[in-house]
Amino acid sequence: MQFLSDNAAPVHPAVWEAMRRADATDAPYDNDALSRSLDRAFSDLFGMECAVLWTSTGTAANCLALATLVPPFGGIVCHDDAHIEQDEAGAPEFFTHGAKLMLAHGPHAKLTPASIDAVIDPIRNDIHRVQPTAIAITQATEQGCVYSPGELAALTAHAKAKGLKIHMDGARFANAVAHLDCAPADAGPAHGIDTLSFGMIKNGGMSAEALVLFDPAKAAEAKRRHKRAGQLQSKGRYLAAQLLAMLEGDVWLDNARAANLAAATIAKAAGERLLYPCDANEVFVAMSPAEREALRAQGFGFYDWGADAARFVTAWNTDATDADKLAAAIAAP
Amino acid sequence: MQFLSDNAAPVHPAVWEAMRRADATDAPYDNDALSRSLDRAFSDLFGMECAVLWTSTGTAANCLALATLVPPFGGIVCHDDAHIEQDEAGAPEFFTHGAKLMLAHGPHAKLTPASIDAVIDPIRNDIHRVQPTAIAITQATEQGCVYSPGELAALTAHAKAKGLKIHMDGARFANAVAHLDCAPADAGPAHGIDTLSFGMIKNGGMSAEALVLFDPAKAAEAKRRHKRAGQLQSKGRYLAAQLLAMLEGDVWLDNARAANLAAATIAKAAGERLLYPCDANEVFVAMSPAEREALRAQGFGFYDWGADAARFVTAWNTDATDADKLAAAIAAP
Amino acid sequence: MQFLSDNAAPVHPAVWEAMRRADATDAPYDNDALSRSLDRAFSDLFGMECAVLWTSTGTAANCLALATLVPPFGGIVCHDDAHIEQDEAGAPEFFTHGAKLMLAHGPHAKLTPASIDAVIDPIRNDIHRVQPTAIAITQATEQGCVYSPGELAALTAHAKAKGLKIHMDGARFANAVAHLDCAPADAGPAHGIDTLSFGMIKNGGMSAEALVLFDPAKAAEAKRRHKRAGQLQSKGRYLAAQLLAMLEGDVWLDNARAANLAAATIAKAAGERLLYPCDANEVFVAMSPAEREALRAQGFGFYDWGADAARFVTAWNTDATDADKLAAAIAAP
Amino acid sequence: MQFLSDNAAPVHPAVWEAMRRADATDAPYDNDALSRSLDRAFSDLFGMECAVLWTSTGTAANCLALATLVPPFGGIVCHDDAHIEQDEAGAPEFFTHGAKLMLAHGPHAKLTPASIDAVIDPIRNDIHRVQPTAIAITQATEQGCVYSPGELAALTAHAKAKGLKIHMDGARFANAVAHLDCAPADAGPAHGIDTLSFGMIKNGGMSAEALVLFDPAKAAEAKRRHKRAGQLQSKGRYLAAQLLAMLEGDVWLDNARAANLAAATIAKAAGERLLYPCDANEVFVAMSPAEREALRAQGFGFYDWGADAARFVTAWNTDATDADKLAAAIAAP
Repeated sequence: MQFLSDNAAPVHPAVWEAMRRADATDAPYDNDALSRSLDRAFSDLFGMECAVLWTSTGTAANCLALATLVPPFGGIVCHDDAHIEQDEAGAPEFFTHGAKLMLAHGPHAKLTPASIDAVIDPIRNDIHRVQPTAIAITQATEQGCVYSPGELAALTAHAKAKGLKIHMDGARFANAVAHLDCAPADAGPAHGIDTLSFGMIKNGGMSAEALVLFDPAKAAEAKRRHKRAGQLQSKGRYLAAQLLAMLEGDVWLDNARAANLAAATIAKAAGERLLYPCDANEVFVAMSPAEREALRAQGFGFYDWGADAARFVTAWNTDATDADKLAAAIAAP
Repeated sequence: MQFLSDNAAPVHPAVWEAMRRADATDAPYDNDALSRSLDRAFSDLFGMECAVLWTSTGTAANCLALATLVPPFGGIVCHDDAHIEQDEAGAPEFFTHGAKLMLAHGPHAKLTPASIDAVIDPIRNDIHRVQPTAIAITQATEQGCVYSPGELAALTAHAKAKGLKIHMDGARFANAVAHLDCAPADAGPAHGIDTLSFGMIKNGGMSAEALVLFDPAKAAEAKRRHKRAGQLQSKGRYLAAQLLAMLEGDVWLDNARAANLAAATIAKAAGERLLYPCDANEVFVAMSPAEREALRAQGFGFYDWGADAARFVTAWNTDATDADKLAAAIAAP
Repeated sequence: MQFLSDNAAPVHPAVWEAMRRADATDAPYDNDALSRSLDRAFSDLFGMECAVLWTSTGTAANCLALATLVPPFGGIVCHDDAHIEQDEAGAPEFFTHGAKLMLAHGPHAKLTPASIDAVIDPIRNDIHRVQPTAIAITQATEQGCVYSPGELAALTAHAKAKGLKIHMDGARFANAVAHLDCAPADAGPAHGIDTLSFGMIKNGGMSAEALVLFDPAKAAEAKRRHKRAGQLQSKGRYLAAQLLAMLEGDVWLDNARAANLAAATIAKAAGERLLYPCDANEVFVAMSPAEREALRAQGFGFYDWGADAARFVTAWNTDATDADKLAAAIAAP
Repeated sequence: MQFLSDNAAPVHPAVWEAMRRADATDAPYDNDALSRSLDRAFSDLFGMECAVLWTSTGTAANCLALATLVPPFGGIVCHDDAHIEQDEAGAPEFFTHGAKLMLAHGPHAKLTPASIDAVIDPIRNDIHRVQPTAIAITQATEQGCVYSPGELAALTAHAKAKGLKIHMDGARFANAVAHLDCAPADAGPAHGIDTLSFGMIKNGGMSAEALVLFDPAKAAEAKRRHKRAGQLQSKGRYLAAQLLAMLEGDVWLDNARAANLAAATIAKAAGERLLYPCDANEVFVAMSPAEREALRAQGFGFYDWGADAARFVTAWNTDATDADKLAAAIAAP
């Protein structure tokens, strides 16, 4: 009973089928019919014109996005728990040629107007300081929390007023939409974000994430950087097929709902011991080493979260019975 | 009847099957059992210890290799037709942080000791000049030609005597081995090359190339660069599965042989009109615009090669009948 | 009466004279006799073999040093007040191709073994995290404090035990030596630091800082990076002359002593209102806006230090009478 | 009798005097009155609005200029003898984060519309190729030749028609103006170049070159890159003083005329043996090893130019008698 990572989940049957259908010979790179239909499919999903590139990782999607928004001499305000700071091994610095991550603090791994200001207000606008040029937020956050449309509206208005571009790391964007039960655009794009990395791999895909540019005029530059970063796969049709399969019939949303539901079951059992609100598919629970050992002895796989807690991650395929069993085990005295 | 590109070929059944088998939940990134078995599998293939990373493109494999061999202030001698110079959109400069490609000339897109010297001998060893630190050769070359073991021995001995590291772009390494009908190592690794990008995608794979490091001590650095470049996929087991499937039962070699055979059929028909020896799976034929139009009218797909020639590429799945038809059409007066 | 910055001080007469003497025609770049004598001169000063390059700024010296110590995928632990973090506009990221500054905290802008551990201990040694590879300390610090030999011994032993390289930003290294009244090496080099940027410009020079490499084998690489960064001036003899003039007859030390003495006068007057110990030539004094206004009305020039304090900087040429006047004005009720 | 390099020449008295006058305490960095007057002074010289930054080397001036014109994924067409290709150790790649130099050929180290087209016309406008985005020309060229206003008009019109930005490396721009005997703007700026590195060091300065931006709106970005590259000296007034001293009373032009005149004397003696037209202050003369040895035995210092020629460089301070002696020695049978 595996709650280690949604990265370990298998590929959804609809994705497999779409990949098989893509097997017919077609044009290389992103010249195939499937890749060429991505802009339209995502523009329809969001009700906003956008351009879409597939990438092989969320890291590549995030960092290509940042490279189109931020010059090498610019700064990116992000939460100190942000994936781009903690888990991408310096990829933002690599893709942007050295832009600086500027770390904000605050609960739930969320940025707020105030936490942004706490970072940028002390920065003199002089030549000796790196100047902030963008913010990067994660939806859902690294603590499994979701920005509400109201939070997003306030945050993005503030960023724009400060002249900052906005990137959204949406590795678990689907889970955020599922939680908010809103139009997809309202979980981010409708609030004027510039770029979104829309994660598909954790949510049932295999090897394709979507880099979404809400200023399609930026696509030409993004494609140059994408090729130059070794991201332009020669058989791109298999990646486009994955993305389209996820969108078709809202597989992405159903999968996210299933994962969220399983997480909610676990979170409910954790009760007061929850470290953060469980909005998406990650559950962080205060738990002694002995308790964790006991859970593992019962066959549950999960990661420690520091010394005194555990992290449980559900996925599109998490078995409801397994989630129930875990919930029961956690709730047991 | 498509002879445009081996990138347009479908995925081999054995690869599909292996990917399906990898679907069972396993550890993320490259911690899965399949990824962890790559070093062993390729070391056995070559009879030499090596470390192997999967990448999503040959560009990434080539450029990560170069980045481990060449400092930002170094130079890389390559043929002016080399893929890294002509077709990777500046990726070598991106991954190496600005190393300079130094262009050699000569027939068949091959480097020779003499053509290397023509590039490096005029470079004063002073502080004002970028100093050459590596060579990059392509096996089979961009003109479809294969370095013989003898050529390789002379070339690599020369490079080493000059203190140059050696990278081999093996996008079509399988075709080279098939042509030489030799032990895989003898087509490159046994001659002391440092790194090899062993192409699998054109030859029946989907989305995984093999970056092979013959100094396994370099693997730690290469993995840092790989992650930092957004190449560390979270479901890496599907990539490892592809590579292993290609090796198992020598699918890679059978596929290459099939492609080479089809190419040879076409090349034979071209006779004197062949631009370069057809050693692998690419056939370059002098051909007037009218002839090309006529071929296309018969349903053959291919690219122009400059103003007066055509390039035909075969793949693992090229239909022998199609190849015969094309050969007949080319031979026809 | 100017206490704004030691950067605003004039050039010392001995430096002017040496530059004039360098005016005789000589070899370009760093091939002149003066430049070629730098290694010897600094090796003698420190009683340790070292290689020395002149640079036009402390930023260039610091960042070239870091680039020789830290790979693009590495991290540099520094204090959050460090000049390389606060005042170099992203130059460390530029020269190192994207290494990450990792910010430690603590009083007096000093690193300690504990503050280093607070940064590095939480960093998992996995592929997703940038790994620390060096520390950078400033002597004297950005708060005008000096590391004692004992502090340095503990700090450098700790860094080495953790496998970290050590760079010392010595923009005011002379003031530190003057304060410690020790052998120059004991203020840093003797403790096993790898590189030192030895500041001369604030202390009476015009346009030359010394980048000191205590592993002379690194000089070849450093010179490549130096040239490539546009630092190799064609008339380098004028820079070498400055450095040699500063060393000759201990001008550097006399100048630093004079500046420290003037600062001590001011610091004494500030008494309890000193923000940090005044070890070198910077005095930070708690002071209301009204007081600052009053001082300025009396003709004293200086910068605010946040909302509630002032920073006074003395230089080699600070007039003792001016320092006395300022001290009196500060001490006045 | 030194004809090795104009880099070895001393500093002009007017420059020394201006530097001494700058010694009065003033604001640090480029906030001093002298630095702030540069834009005006150069705008007046050229009769065109421009922004000017001092740099410590021509390499830095050239490469900062290129970095403001060319994205990391762009290409720069230059002559294969260009200083940026041959003598800057990869600095263009460093400052631009990996843009590619694209090498044109042709006599006199000059670009022409045809030689540009020979480079760029074969470059497919697809995602796999680096696309040219600028040209870089040298005035006077690396072979000592000067573009006429007519040549410049044709060249720049062509570049603009192709959508290419234009940088001029003016390490010996003064010599070019002296040769053309035209308004300074007509030697380059008036033809619509975007950036100019206006060399002062070889021509009597010490350590300051002028980076001239003809789109002053680009100054903000250029200043960020300048600081980030370690070029923002803390005592910038000494650099500004040099540039202003060169402009005042046309010292720059008088110096260049003197150097050109001495070169012309030598060139005349060389007659048919001149390798290239001697337009500026460099004389390239076919000459056997024995002849060179004989000249050196007579006390003349100069560099070999390949195996069969010599290069003689004059400077602002070349003694007319020395030039006559060299001319006589060359002309002697």
